[in-house]
Amino acid sequence: MPTPTTREDCAALDAADPLAFARERFELPPAVIYLDGNSLGAMPRAVAPRMREAVEREWAHGLIRSWNDAGWYTAPQRAAAKIARLIGAAPDEVIVTDSISVNLFKLMAGAIGIQRRRDPARTVIVAERGNFPTDVYVDASLARLLGMELVCVEQAEVPAAIDRAGERLAVVQLTQVNYRSGRTYDLPAITAQTHALGGLVIWDLAHSAGALPVGLSDAGADFAVGCGYKYLNGGPGAPAFAFVARRWIAGLEQPLVGWHGHAAPFDFEHEFRPAPGIERLLCGTEPQLSLLALEAALDAFDGVGLQALRAKSVAMTEAFTALAERAVGGFGAGSGFGLASPRDAAQRGSQVSLTHPQGYAIVQALIARGVIGDFRAPDILRFGFAPLYLRFVDVFDAAQALHEVVAQRLWDRPEFLARKAVT
Amino acid sequence: MPTPTTREDCAALDAADPLAFARERFELPPAVIYLDGNSLGAMPRAVAPRMREAVEREWAHGLIRSWNDAGWYTAPQRAAAKIARLIGAAPDEVIVTDSISVNLFKLMAGAIGIQRRRDPARTVIVAERGNFPTDVYVDASLARLLGMELVCVEQAEVPAAIDRAGERLAVVQLTQVNYRSGRTYDLPAITAQTHALGGLVIWDLAHSAGALPVGLSDAGADFAVGCGYKYLNGGPGAPAFAFVARRWIAGLEQPLVGWHGHAAPFDFEHEFRPAPGIERLLCGTEPQLSLLALEAALDAFDGVGLQALRAKSVAMTEAFTALAERAVGGFGAGSGFGLASPRDAAQRGSQVSLTHPQGYAIVQALIARGVIGDFRAPDILRFGFAPLYLRFVDVFDAAQALHEVVAQRLWDRPEFLARKAVT
Repeated sequence: MPTPTTREDCAALDAADPLAFARERFELPPAVIYLDGNSLGAMPRAVAPRMREAVEREWAHGLIRSWNDAGWYTAPQRAAAKIARLIGAAPDEVIVTDSISVNLFKLMAGAIGIQRRRDPARTVIVAERGNFPTDVYVDASLARLLGMELVCVEQAEVPAAIDRAGERLAVVQLTQVNYRSGRTYDLPAITAQTHALGGLVIWDLAHSAGALPVGLSDAGADFAVGCGYKYLNGGPGAPAFAFVARRWIAGLEQPLVGWHGHAAPFDFEHEFRPAPGIERLLCGTEPQLSLLALEAALDAFDGVGLQALRAKSVAMTEAFTALAERAVGGFGAGSGFGLASPRDAAQRGSQVSLTHPQGYAIVQALIARGVIGDFRAPDILRFGFAPLYLRFVDVFDAAQALHEVVAQRLWDRPEFLARKAVT
Repeated sequence: MPTPTTREDCAALDAADPLAFARERFELPPAVIYLDGNSLGAMPRAVAPRMREAVEREWAHGLIRSWNDAGWYTAPQRAAAKIARLIGAAPDEVIVTDSISVNLFKLMAGAIGIQRRRDPARTVIVAERGNFPTDVYVDASLARLLGMELVCVEQAEVPAAIDRAGERLAVVQLTQVNYRSGRTYDLPAITAQTHALGGLVIWDLAHSAGALPVGLSDAGADFAVGCGYKYLNGGPGAPAFAFVARRWIAGLEQPLVGWHGHAAPFDFEHEFRPAPGIERLLCGTEPQLSLLALEAALDAFDGVGLQALRAKSVAMTEAFTALAERAVGGFGAGSGFGLASPRDAAQRGSQVSLTHPQGYAIVQALIARGVIGDFRAPDILRFGFAPLYLRFVDVFDAAQALHEVVAQRLWDRPEFLARKAVT
């Protein structure tokens, strides 16, 4: 579709938007354009009554009985089944539990274990230097703990690093959409390249799930983790998910064992026997209130096709890239603004990232005008486009607000310069 | 105080109860006597409005800004400071995060690391065979992963096992109050015995925190974990807490690293540098809704003295032991009932445990009469006494219900025999 240049163009795109119905499923504050759904998704309206019920009826009045009677016990599987469709996996290959960091630890340890049992000479982990820090911290920690060699390279050099590892390749660990640049990996291609060398891949889908069709099964993916609180809108710190291809489940052993991952948790056996299915990744008791919020939130995707989701996401990031370029007077030395996200939509997730030396203050000035994006050090202005609840007129208005900030050089104002703990 | 024998005696104890005020802080369903607060604590009334605010205002309208503006970011420390008083620790030695299982993994790995750096010959972990399974699973997993020797013995044999380990002793890992029998360890004595041999102790306070004064600092304890959803009433699966004595924090290294445990999380550094304080135990993003529920719930302890709490707990378990013994016609072969919890209150936590071959069905029959306890395989009937919201008349009425179940042999009824997933 043509890139819109006026607000009327954007309104016309909204009128023709096949996903327009989904916006009504969200509670959105007035006078806010929310471009930070890639950090904390907006609240689906279904969550508020669900949480009242969970707290005020199921917990307060059902008490311990609600583990059975309200179905708390099977919430990790139910939420997982809803996520499975969004990432192209079977329901019995996904479980919701713990955080991304903790789940990555489990899968990385499990994948290394599988490889070491097959061939002790496979000792190389390939990872991305610019990946979200938690991923690299976990990769490095397990490399140290299990005697592996961690090779960290820039995103563009990953395929070459995989090839260099060759027969020593054990595991590749990458995030499909980079959190700063929004640049994507070709997930099927990297998976195939890794498999050709006998390696396994662990994908972090933090910025993919709920924003684009991931297609794990079609790509023959091995393992994945992902986030419940970004595009899945599960609430602050919502539990994360883990995916294990069915062929790896029975052989997956990992050290973070807990009673909920046992084959018979309520037999209270002395010896750990992992559950036969994906439940072996459960550890302690899940934070149920957060989990039930996520489960309810996922219904916002009911009837939403993944191709339509991606088409709208691409159209929005195309539009914002063009409108922002016009708003700042072009990317380059003259304006001080750069484009950190790819020009090519095929290589871009659902975000647009700009650069500017005063990025922090500019983001604060935009927030003061009701346009909420975020800043990632040292110089990234990050704008996420959640296709479920954003309109094309929001895209236009956000670019217009950016224009006003630039025209008035608002980033020089002292109130926008003071740093907060989290942005 | 004298053990009550009539309902009037119990009513008199309630009238004189210095903690009676606390019951009004809880929402309790009508016609229920809740003796399962050691599995899932009742809901403090303060939680319901706090959750509405967190979901419907802070998340829905504050969106990402609430990490700063609503103080989400510092909730792990705030909740921890409230727990610190209950366990006799300093606020900066406690953090709320993840589950008990996950925190135990962190502390066990950290403690082993400290010991191996001091003396590589210290390779023995002493644990209890009858401990809650998750603890043993984590102990065994890390023993295997880090090349340690795990010695699991029955509770009564733990002191001898510690002595036998001698100079090879690295870590002792125990739960202060056994989940089945309610039998306690002498925490200061075991800690002192372990220290005399150069060992470190990790205490699991799942059934202690909020039920009895733990006194970690007074005992010179090293490490502890504990549960947010039992006597702390934080809600189903509430996040857990971890304690590290100040002298060990700076040297604590553990493999479950994540960005929230970094010294500067929002600098997104490639290399992990642990936070200088107890925050180094944080890993991924916390499940905030569950965490904020716990934080609000902890205010139910405001103005509650720990000695008064313990005195009421002891009086209730004394009373129930005596009343139950009378209700079932005495413990022994004649009645089929046994007493699994200690007679001596000094060795008992805040629970009374009976045994009976038909324990499961008896617990179900009691639940059908509104007396909610729980069953732990193979034959334990477990009754927890949360001093904050239980009355002595509840103790009397529960024993009376037990008498009726026994008199009518209700455990033979088929509706009480079918097992549910969780009890």
